[in-house]
Amino acid sequence: MLKNYEIRKYQIPQEEIKALIKEKRAELAGQQMLIKEHKIPVFVLIEGWGAAGKGTLIGNLIKDLDPRFFCVTTMKEPNEEERRKPFLWRYMETIPEAGKFVFLNSGWLNETADDVANDRIDEETLEQRLRQIRTFDRQLKDNGYLVIKLFLQIPREEQKERLDKLKEEKHTRWRVSEKDIQQVKKRGRYEKIYDRILEATNTGYVPWNVVDAVDKKQALLQALHLLTNQINQAAENFKILPEILHKDYPLLKMPKLAQTPLDQEMSKEEYGIRLKERQKKLRELHNRIYHKKIPVVIAYEGWDAAGKGGNIKRLAGALDPRGFEVHPIASPEPHEKARHYLWRFYHRLPKDGHIAIFDRTWYGRVMVERLEGFCTENDWKRAYNEINEFEQELSEWGAIVIKFWVHIDKDTQLARFTERENTPEKRWKITEEDWRNREKWDAYEEAVDEMIARTSTENAPWYIIQSNNKYYARIQAIEILISEIEKRLL
Amino acid sequence: MLKNYEIRKYQIPQEEIKALIKEKRAELAGQQMLIKEHKIPVFVLIEGWGAAGKGTLIGNLIKDLDPRFFCVTTMKEPNEEERRKPFLWRYMETIPEAGKFVFLNSGWLNETADDVANDRIDEETLEQRLRQIRTFDRQLKDNGYLVIKLFLQIPREEQKERLDKLKEEKHTRWRVSEKDIQQVKKRGRYEKIYDRILEATNTGYVPWNVVDAVDKKQALLQALHLLTNQINQAAENFKILPEILHKDYPLLKMPKLAQTPLDQEMSKEEYGIRLKERQKKLRELHNRIYHKKIPVVIAYEGWDAAGKGGNIKRLAGALDPRGFEVHPIASPEPHEKARHYLWRFYHRLPKDGHIAIFDRTWYGRVMVERLEGFCTENDWKRAYNEINEFEQELSEWGAIVIKFWVHIDKDTQLARFTERENTPEKRWKITEEDWRNREKWDAYEEAVDEMIARTSTENAPWYIIQSNNKYYARIQAIEILISEIEKRLL
Repeated sequence: MLKNYEIRKYQIPQEEIKALIKEKRAELAGQQMLIKEHKIPVFVLIEGWGAAGKGTLIGNLIKDLDPRFFCVTTMKEPNEEERRKPFLWRYMETIPEAGKFVFLNSGWLNETADDVANDRIDEETLEQRLRQIRTFDRQLKDNGYLVIKLFLQIPREEQKERLDKLKEEKHTRWRVSEKDIQQVKKRGRYEKIYDRILEATNTGYVPWNVVDAVDKKQALLQALHLLTNQINQAAENFKILPEILHKDYPLLKMPKLAQTPLDQEMSKEEYGIRLKERQKKLRELHNRIYHKKIPVVIAYEGWDAAGKGGNIKRLAGALDPRGFEVHPIASPEPHEKARHYLWRFYHRLPKDGHIAIFDRTWYGRVMVERLEGFCTENDWKRAYNEINEFEQELSEWGAIVIKFWVHIDKDTQLARFTERENTPEKRWKITEEDWRNREKWDAYEEAVDEMIARTSTENAPWYIIQSNNKYYARIQAIEILISEIEKRLL
Repeated sequence: MLKNYEIRKYQIPQEEIKALIKEKRAELAGQQMLIKEHKIPVFVLIEGWGAAGKGTLIGNLIKDLDPRFFCVTTMKEPNEEERRKPFLWRYMETIPEAGKFVFLNSGWLNETADDVANDRIDEETLEQRLRQIRTFDRQLKDNGYLVIKLFLQIPREEQKERLDKLKEEKHTRWRVSEKDIQQVKKRGRYEKIYDRILEATNTGYVPWNVVDAVDKKQALLQALHLLTNQINQAAENFKILPEILHKDYPLLKMPKLAQTPLDQEMSKEEYGIRLKERQKKLRELHNRIYHKKIPVVIAYEGWDAAGKGGNIKRLAGALDPRGFEVHPIASPEPHEKARHYLWRFYHRLPKDGHIAIFDRTWYGRVMVERLEGFCTENDWKRAYNEINEFEQELSEWGAIVIKFWVHIDKDTQLARFTERENTPEKRWKITEEDWRNREKWDAYEEAVDEMIARTSTENAPWYIIQSNNKYYARIQAIEILISEIEKRLL
């Protein structure tokens, strides 16, 4: 892309360029209301050579914007915490809220290029990342984001000249980094790396725009044109439904809920003995994954009154409290609702070596959100694939991903609801909503069956926990976790 | 405290201790509903010697708790980002939500003791920190928190023995840090340091509890006793109103709003020239504070339609977008409402060298929350002092703190409201609520006068921006900021 890119220069006098810049800037400022009205989040990624003028360009782009509606984020080397999360985690953290701009000064392109140039990642990891970036772009777009990517291009001589000039003055010398100097020295190698990444992430849904950045005014005008055009297009097209993808994930064959036996028994006595023994085992394994820096993500879903809480408690009871966190998931708060629906789950991912237990999860989209109409049909139909992609990313990051459906039958639920209502200290656990959900049992069962069938992948399998007998269910969950960890430690 | 502390041992057989532990654990589990009902956040800080058993104790305390209602946080050495924030920032980040527990495994005591032992802070900084910790404890308590502090005490020989044992085994060797070894070697010095910090932060409202940790069962029972007693007390006393403090801050003499002239004029032409010139100056200064790592916190408050937004835009327009952030403050989201009201502002503090501009601020408490009854009378009356303390902490951290009241008169507001209603592209800016607020002008004016009078401190002064003429107001704000930065750079 860099070698053959077309130089798109405005062949007009400087004066006219200035006037056009002014005009386009005013247009962009006016579009703030447009993106607010249509709730479009605009994510602008500015990449390019060192000294190509990324910071200056951003400074010029935002000049007429209202600072309440945009945010500029400069991406440095990832810090220790960021290194312990999935590669794209810190980029996901920065995505804008609906109706706002985020300008990213350097991002995954530069980070990856440096990692390649310094031999910090191998070919397989690179390929994984490139795919993850494409997925990230596409998911954002499908979830209503406008993503605009610019690469600021300057020739080698120009870059060298600019860096030399910066180095000359005491005042600006600090702005030249070791990395910048390396880029000039290894220009050929960097060109190849950039080209490869640009091409691999240049998709129909989020293409790259290579901008000639030798002349700053020309570059600014080009960028303004791009932004204003794309915002207008996005505002017009916001009603076009994204395609529903069915990627070819190798799915595990799963039984339907109706086919799952629920008659297992376990006495309190046997439970006591086995719990102690299994918890001890799990404690040892927790220690080992901590040292091996393996992250674990456990998702709990299940019927109301199925015993999720008690199950989580026994599982967590075996873990070193410094190494795990339980995330109870309620309905999204405003700042969460204003972003990609997976954002709040990304945000809560554990550090490597840690365990995150989600009490209700991202599967809300294909259950309660689907059935209560909290999202559109296109949204939940797209979600199966989006979730498979999300979990694949977790697994590529190195995580053990386990999903539990805590299952009971309808009679057992009724018995537990009734018991809750008749026991004063349990009454807080039962609400009108539980009864309403119960009435929709059949619709939920169908949704759960579909969810389990479509998202049971080898790297993120569903397990149906048989919870008519809570003792049995708790031992079952712990044993599954133990076996999954052991498989990994082999 | 450590030398003369009374060993409180239960002089009862081991069997009885076990039975009591079981009983108290069940009581603590039952209290989860109590703290939920009374919306009490419980913050438990566990400090103590290396190898005293902090982690084990926490593990035992939470055994019967529901993992959805507590969180364990282990405090390590502050990372680079944390070092660039105020000392207590990361502790403020971890405070629990209403109705939940947070257990802190080591905290400000250990961090400060290590800093003293390694000569990383001087006497003055130490004294500052100790005062800040006392303030932190008191503010939490006054805002409905139950804070419980434990120090696990073991004699030197016991510590040495435990560490030696850990070092022996390959499996546990990693748990012995250089710091632990230092503690044993310099035990006398550490004892003095701990004692000083313990005594200086041992207050009537949040006292320290030194726990004999030689026998783990004894220590656990003591801790359980403490927790359950204090939770019961807190649940009984939650209606007792905290004292309203008036600390003796040197206040600047400020005019009332009614006495502030509003007849300044500035032509568009003069404005254009001065803006350009002043923005250039500010840009240079921004660069300098970035290099000197001086943080800047700018608070914007003002009448509706006074021109806050436009004012912020011109001021921010002069800044390098990589070095500032604008935080528009709306009503708190659920997770913010569930915490100390200053939490969401702490959370948004800039890194050192960066500028944070708050568009509406923590002063909401003594304005809208006061007048609309969103908090109790005791809450807003306490807030003047709490805010002065907060801003003092910012200033001690090294921040430049500036507060703008963007002022107009009633007629000007009416004219601008009317213009907004008559201009289609401005109509979104005006709502029913604006008109309702306008009806309460007099009550607001009184509240603003009181706020300015009581919180204009030398280190965090209020400036009344005269905004009947918006051009004048914008230049005024930028010039004030320039002059405050220049004062600091002298």
